[in-house]
Amino acid sequence: MNEFQLIRKYFSNLSKSNKASLNLNDDVFFDKSKRLVISVDTYVEGTHFLNFRKPELVIKKIIRSSISDIICKGVKPKFYFISGSGNKKSFSYSNLSKITKSLKQEQKKYNISLCGGDTVFSNKLSFTITTLGFSNKIILRNNTKLNDDIYVTGNLGDSFAGLNILKKKFNVNKNLKKYFVSKYYMPNLYLKLTDDLLSFANSSIDISDGLISDLEKLINKQKFSYKLELGSIPISKNLKKMIFLKRLNKKNFVSQGDDYQILFTANSSKSRIIKKTSNFLGIKISKIGKICSHLLDNEIIDQKGKKISLKNKGYSHKF
Amino acid sequence: MNEFQLIRKYFSNLSKSNKASLNLNDDVFFDKSKRLVISVDTYVEGTHFLNFRKPELVIKKIIRSSISDIICKGVKPKFYFISGSGNKKSFSYSNLSKITKSLKQEQKKYNISLCGGDTVFSNKLSFTITTLGFSNKIILRNNTKLNDDIYVTGNLGDSFAGLNILKKKFNVNKNLKKYFVSKYYMPNLYLKLTDDLLSFANSSIDISDGLISDLEKLINKQKFSYKLELGSIPISKNLKKMIFLKRLNKKNFVSQGDDYQILFTANSSKSRIIKKTSNFLGIKISKIGKICSHLLDNEIIDQKGKKISLKNKGYSHKF
Repeated sequence: MNEFQLIRKYFSNLSKSNKASLNLNDDVFFDKSKRLVISVDTYVEGTHFLNFRKPELVIKKIIRSSISDIICKGVKPKFYFISGSGNKKSFSYSNLSKITKSLKQEQKKYNISLCGGDTVFSNKLSFTITTLGFSNKIILRNNTKLNDDIYVTGNLGDSFAGLNILKKKFNVNKNLKKYFVSKYYMPNLYLKLTDDLLSFANSSIDISDGLISDLEKLINKQKFSYKLELGSIPISKNLKKMIFLKRLNKKNFVSQGDDYQILFTANSSKSRIIKKTSNFLGIKISKIGKICSHLLDNEIIDQKGKKISLKNKGYSHKF
Repeated sequence: MNEFQLIRKYFSNLSKSNKASLNLNDDVFFDKSKRLVISVDTYVEGTHFLNFRKPELVIKKIIRSSISDIICKGVKPKFYFISGSGNKKSFSYSNLSKITKSLKQEQKKYNISLCGGDTVFSNKLSFTITTLGFSNKIILRNNTKLNDDIYVTGNLGDSFAGLNILKKKFNVNKNLKKYFVSKYYMPNLYLKLTDDLLSFANSSIDISDGLISDLEKLINKQKFSYKLELGSIPISKNLKKMIFLKRLNKKNFVSQGDDYQILFTANSSKSRIIKKTSNFLGIKISKIGKICSHLLDNEIIDQKGKKISLKNKGYSHKF
């Protein structure tokens, strides 16, 4: 049983009386009457980040992963809380200096402010980040419409390449290493996109677990299928280069997770305005497929029109 | 350097621009314009709770400890988030059933509702609870006035006795064991008191770290001293009995923490209304001392008028 099913089974009836919990079916809590959007996430060393050798980078990854949950719903994050559990070494003066320096940079970049938190002793390092935003509208999951186009922002796969370079599974030159590792630690988030996203997206999610896994969560209980074209799934020039040089396969990179790009669906009539917004804001937005009737099978088509399956349907925190 | 100093030193300038953080000087975040009160706390096995042999009780202790932070500020908690990190054994189906059953009981008792959360894999068990309440006013720390009376709700020391019985440091009969262990796991919280507390308290805190430690946090940077009378510090009949039987000393029980009673100060003119409220609501409220000029030393006086010091100034999550 994975995390998703686990939460649903045991916790969902505790929130029945409470609409704002969205039945625990979304990544956020949304109380319309109080205009309040909240996301809570826990990050454990070895599971959500490789190690703590670069605390200044790990902390950026964690903060971005947390605010990404809110940004992808069309809402600007405003406040955050950070709770750290760790030992003396993890929270040495030198590390605390690096952490606060990074947090200061993130606060400026994303216009957020620290509101509180907690530091406790534990021999296992983990962080819980609570992020708050304020809005009277958000983009939900479970609101996909038949024949919606499926879009994704930015590029997929760079973060997975970075992780494997850090794990020494690929050996690449200095420049490529720098590029991919920075994508692993510091995904681009599109704060500027939130208002437009609210105006054209029917449903949205950020890709943390992997393209296919998150697409299936996005559709969730709705009776739809999807059709994706591998050729349309955006990857960076650097990833193209590495795939070519190392004789790798694109399909093994695009659904591995940790991308923190926004996956959303929109009516086909919005196609022009989405293109315009993309050009105006300078944010890459790619149409990668379509929402279809549940009578059809889910399909991913490669460049030759052949049906393929994307291995690794994404990361799930299994118990 | 303890947790309190650590947070202050490294994190407080990250929240400078943000009034609602209360400079990280309080246990809660309070945004007056949004009427929003939030508390975030992390609980680690072995540090904040002894072990996980009774998940149904541990979860009650954790929830009450978290909502206590908000109740002591004069605010009713409304929503909570729970993030658990643990292994397969900690989150077995049987344990999850027990946890959700307990949460259901706590929700009913304190009129709160689950809003979301997270479960992640870790070989070290910990929980982070985020609690929300809504109010346009809260009782702050740092707002104590000269000559204020110092009050505490309920009894102190029962939880510490329970912990030591669980640790097999005291051997008592079945009934006493049941009483003290239940106080360790299930402190009484006074939801009914919040509105009245707002009307008469100048400053307040809940006792989690210990009477003296939390009193000093309550006074914080204000230039005051305190005078306490050991004889006035309330303890239960059962604790009196155990102290008598085992030839123990009251002063070693009343400042050990984990009491989750409300410590507050109020102008002496409020004395009558506090007594009336206490009688009306059936909540024990004891006057235990006075806030004095900073020119005097802090003083704790025993029943014979002799100055004493309360050993163990409370629990601090040291790094």
